[in-house]
Amino acid sequence: MNQTASLTSTRRPRLLLVGAAGTIGRAVAAELSPRYEVITAGRTSGDIVIDMGEEASIRAGLARAGTLDAIVSTAGNVHFGPLAEMTPAQWQVGLQSKLMGQVTLAMIGAGHLRDGGSITLSAGSLAEQPVRGGSSASLVNGALESFVRAAAIELPRGLRINVVSPSVLQESMPDYGPYFRGYEAVPAARVALAYGRSVEGAQTGQVYKVL
Amino acid sequence: MNQTASLTSTRRPRLLLVGAAGTIGRAVAAELSPRYEVITAGRTSGDIVIDMGEEASIRAGLARAGTLDAIVSTAGNVHFGPLAEMTPAQWQVGLQSKLMGQVTLAMIGAGHLRDGGSITLSAGSLAEQPVRGGSSASLVNGALESFVRAAAIELPRGLRINVVSPSVLQESMPDYGPYFRGYEAVPAARVALAYGRSVEGAQTGQVYKVL
Repeated sequence: MNQTASLTSTRRPRLLLVGAAGTIGRAVAAELSPRYEVITAGRTSGDIVIDMGEEASIRAGLARAGTLDAIVSTAGNVHFGPLAEMTPAQWQVGLQSKLMGQVTLAMIGAGHLRDGGSITLSAGSLAEQPVRGGSSASLVNGALESFVRAAAIELPRGLRINVVSPSVLQESMPDYGPYFRGYEAVPAARVALAYGRSVEGAQTGQVYKVL
Repeated sequence: MNQTASLTSTRRPRLLLVGAAGTIGRAVAAELSPRYEVITAGRTSGDIVIDMGEEASIRAGLARAGTLDAIVSTAGNVHFGPLAEMTPAQWQVGLQSKLMGQVTLAMIGAGHLRDGGSITLSAGSLAEQPVRGGSSASLVNGALESFVRAAAIELPRGLRINVVSPSVLQESMPDYGPYFRGYEAVPAARVALAYGRSVEGAQTGQVYKVL
């Protein structure tokens, strides 16, 4: 081990995990808690309350979290329903929560990260492989994938940003199975590895697909 | 020529072109007006006034346009500026105008199209190849590319939807050159061919890149 590594090891790095109570969130916590102090956040549970649909809530939650080495979001809602029946309010759910909630978390969160810190957001394979009723999720996921590519070239101080884009979870198939017939579901533990790769790796502007 | 083609040729197909006064819009009109009755629309000029930031304006404009065979949008605004300085209102410009303006045009417009009609939207290569100051454009373009893939599988009556995703225009280089150093600019007339391919071809759910 070189000196930098041994110096780093004297301090346990701090990771804010928004969406910690979800299926992916719990798997990410299991993957990274051996090496990170994981500060959990969610809309109704966790060390810190953060509602991804409200900028004020994101700002307040980040202020409470203090200085961080990594921010991971596995949070954000999106409305599923037939394209022809989608109302402006239903489109807004995904735009405000999963899309701009995560963008806002990244932008405000950048100011709370130490030099070289990382931001990892969540999209999903519907960006490329649509299903009936998933047009808003596709739109939001595609937006997030392009956003991290763009944000990566403007973030200062060696900050990194990536997004994980998984297929449907094995754990979600009892609920979502009818939407995803024929899709190869992936276990949350495998998806969690991609978050770990983003946090503990060195790349930026990447879309980590887990298919 | 088969009978279908000769029957079709008795009626000149009607195409609504929103954004007709722009550089791409004019090139699309030049490409398609030999074979289509092109109804031009724009925020401040054209046969019909449509403001892509306002659902009521889109709805009213489509109602005036009548029954259509094709809808092409080369319209929609997005804010350019440094990522760290982007305000919520500046993000909203792209979300409301170029993104949801085009989504709304497609969704309401579908009801004005004859069976087998087509919708062609506009994204841009920033979805994959970002430039400084273009994070909102990247986000919006990525969203549009994923949206058309998703919408294509839910549109009824053989309706088709595609998006054209061009690099920076040669005609725009006097203004945008400093943002796009090293990018291979494309002439608007070449970009217009991609719109023609979407309108006159048979594919759906496609992203036609012009690089």
